Amino acid sequence: MYRFSQSVSSLRSSAIRDLMSLATRADMISFAGGMPDNELFPVNEVQTIVNEMSVTERRVAMQYGPTTGYPPLIEALTEWLRKKGFPMDSNKLIITTGSLQAINIFGKMFIDPGDVILTENPAFIGALSAFGSYMPDIHGIDMDGDGIVIQQLKEVLLLNPKFLYITPTFHNPAGITYSQQRRKELLEVMSGTEIPILEDDAYGELYFEEDANEAIVPLKVQSENENLICYTGSFSKIFGPGMRLGFMLVGDEFYRKAELCKQCLDACSPTFTQVLTHRFLASGQLDNYVARIRTIYKQRCECMIDAIKTYFPEEATFVKPKGGFYIWIKLPQGIDEMELLKEVIAEGAVFVVGSTFDPQGKSNGYIRVSYCNTDEEKIVKGMKIIGDTLKSKMKHN
Amino acid sequence: MYRFSQSVSSLRSSAIRDLMSLATRADMISFAGGMPDNELFPVNEVQTIVNEMSVTERRVAMQYGPTTGYPPLIEALTEWLRKKGFPMDSNKLIITTGSLQAINIFGKMFIDPGDVILTENPAFIGALSAFGSYMPDIHGIDMDGDGIVIQQLKEVLLLNPKFLYITPTFHNPAGITYSQQRRKELLEVMSGTEIPILEDDAYGELYFEEDANEAIVPLKVQSENENLICYTGSFSKIFGPGMRLGFMLVGDEFYRKAELCKQCLDACSPTFTQVLTHRFLASGQLDNYVARIRTIYKQRCECMIDAIKTYFPEEATFVKPKGGFYIWIKLPQGIDEMELLKEVIAEGAVFVVGSTFDPQGKSNGYIRVSYCNTDEEKIVKGMKIIGDTLKSKMKHN
Repeated sequence: MYRFSQSVSSLRSSAIRDLMSLATRADMISFAGGMPDNELFPVNEVQTIVNEMSVTERRVAMQYGPTTGYPPLIEALTEWLRKKGFPMDSNKLIITTGSLQAINIFGKMFIDPGDVILTENPAFIGALSAFGSYMPDIHGIDMDGDGIVIQQLKEVLLLNPKFLYITPTFHNPAGITYSQQRRKELLEVMSGTEIPILEDDAYGELYFEEDANEAIVPLKVQSENENLICYTGSFSKIFGPGMRLGFMLVGDEFYRKAELCKQCLDACSPTFTQVLTHRFLASGQLDNYVARIRTIYKQRCECMIDAIKTYFPEEATFVKPKGGFYIWIKLPQGIDEMELLKEVIAEGAVFVVGSTFDPQGKSNGYIRVSYCNTDEEKIVKGMKIIGDTLKSKMKHN
Repeated sequence: MYRFSQSVSSLRSSAIRDLMSLATRADMISFAGGMPDNELFPVNEVQTIVNEMSVTERRVAMQYGPTTGYPPLIEALTEWLRKKGFPMDSNKLIITTGSLQAINIFGKMFIDPGDVILTENPAFIGALSAFGSYMPDIHGIDMDGDGIVIQQLKEVLLLNPKFLYITPTFHNPAGITYSQQRRKELLEVMSGTEIPILEDDAYGELYFEEDANEAIVPLKVQSENENLICYTGSFSKIFGPGMRLGFMLVGDEFYRKAELCKQCLDACSPTFTQVLTHRFLASGQLDNYVARIRTIYKQRCECMIDAIKTYFPEEATFVKPKGGFYIWIKLPQGIDEMELLKEVIAEGAVFVVGSTFDPQGKSNGYIRVSYCNTDEEKIVKGMKIIGDTLKSKMKHN
């Protein structure tokens, strides 16, 4: 009889995916997904781009491209990142098939079975699954409203970890943004080591206030050891996930290894969508588009916060997001989040339970609600369902 | 100091890629690549498809899709394969980011470090690299003009291999097609085992004669143990590689594991290009397009064969391809293929040396020339360069 590999035998279907299947029921109000709103996509701009492509571009768009990416897109993205302060002269870009692929490649570059790696707790489920496929020993570090707890970081650094994975800005699922003080402390602690950092910044462009954004400086931009930092970004939230494009920014040595990994995975990212993305970025349309959706996501976030304040028991607490897609709500003590979910689904709404984002899958008394893909009317209606259900459960406790 | 994982440390940049960089010089006649001809892509058809897409399709095209693929594409591809005799009721499709990703996923599903796997020798370099990233012990089985040598297969089956990887139709690089007799023998030998087969059929649609094609039956179609066969195909040669789309056809158990692997790698294949590919396939345009390019590739193949007969020493031998992109030429004894390559490049043409496709990278006295991406005038000119250089080297030997 055939035998599967150990790594694939260890993979388990995640709870979030089962939830997602519920969330696609037409009448369900979903706060579960992390996908942008279909109605906000720049479909007309894409249409115009396709019609304006030259014959040469049309042909190139259908051909294999370099493993590291379509050169005009790399060039435009390099300049875009340079303006944001990234060290583009000492680093190179690889265009990846979504930023999840960049995260997967980074996992493959470092993890041998049994190796210790560090993540936040909670952490992005996609990254946990990608890392998990290489069979590491994942240690999650708790977070407060300012970022990971530095004392815990110091302790787990003694375990000789292969790398630290963090999402310092508009965290998924925790909704928080690392304070500048916490970023500084983190970099100080890490500077005593040679441990690489994977900085995931899939949501960084989706800030709500210009002022707040200026105070948020990526680790890659401010670290004195930036060569140890792999910075990843995504076009999924600022253009469209269907393009399947993200990127990683790394120094020479990481670049060479990552390119070899990418070569084995899918040879190159889709050229067709890279050509579209190049034009969208280089023309300035991306910046205009993101400015527009920032306002909409901000309004939805404020609407959701108002609904929480109106309908939730005051024992439910959360940190107000400065950007991104998510609010991470700590439930009143004694509420079982799986029980809550079942009752809420019966009433017509859905969210994701906190245990989904725990590296060990442990229950933690939190739920994640996203406001990205739901209009304000539904946000109010759906949050009322969750709040009412919560209050009713508290009465019966 | 940071330490890379063992698997990534073992990856080496392949000779073929260094060659490819030479092959992009504007004045070079390249027989090195496996990419279709830019000028043959159906760019007008794609343009029309984009303009005819509904608003809903435009939005869906920019969104995440199911991990296993865009449902309308899966449906159309299911019916297309059913007509070709594939067992679609007992199997499921996963749309992958190129068929290389399907091959990589299959490698991940089965290979633990040190496991024996079986391939042909020579074999597709992309598959060798993908498998290599999981650190197997690769045993290559020699081929003659009818397929792998059955006696050798029997011997290596004693090594308890995890799987057998083969490309029975229009082989890359060997240009051969397994005879029906050899397919039968292979399936008989394998039926005594429970060893899975990965059947790579990236070129199957590119046959030169309708009659010959009817005699070519995929193993997945004719095996009594088809549940042990993972069949992979690609849209790269019949639509465009820039779409980055391929597929795997597998039974339930392989499907579940493959879906989990795919989920960790890039969550889903690019939706935008899946929407285009769905319309291209479902409308019948794909079949019309492939009928057209078949004729062109056949003419180029015949032109190349004529040029070999005209310009090469008669000691150089090859099996005439029935389809696909490649001719695999056995050089006259005593000719060093790397030396030949250097001299040919100096004269303005390029091919790939045979050792590139040997699982252990050993020299084998062969070269691969592809006729897919070069017009007839250049084929004649370039093959004359190789032939003249060969003859000159033989004189000096």
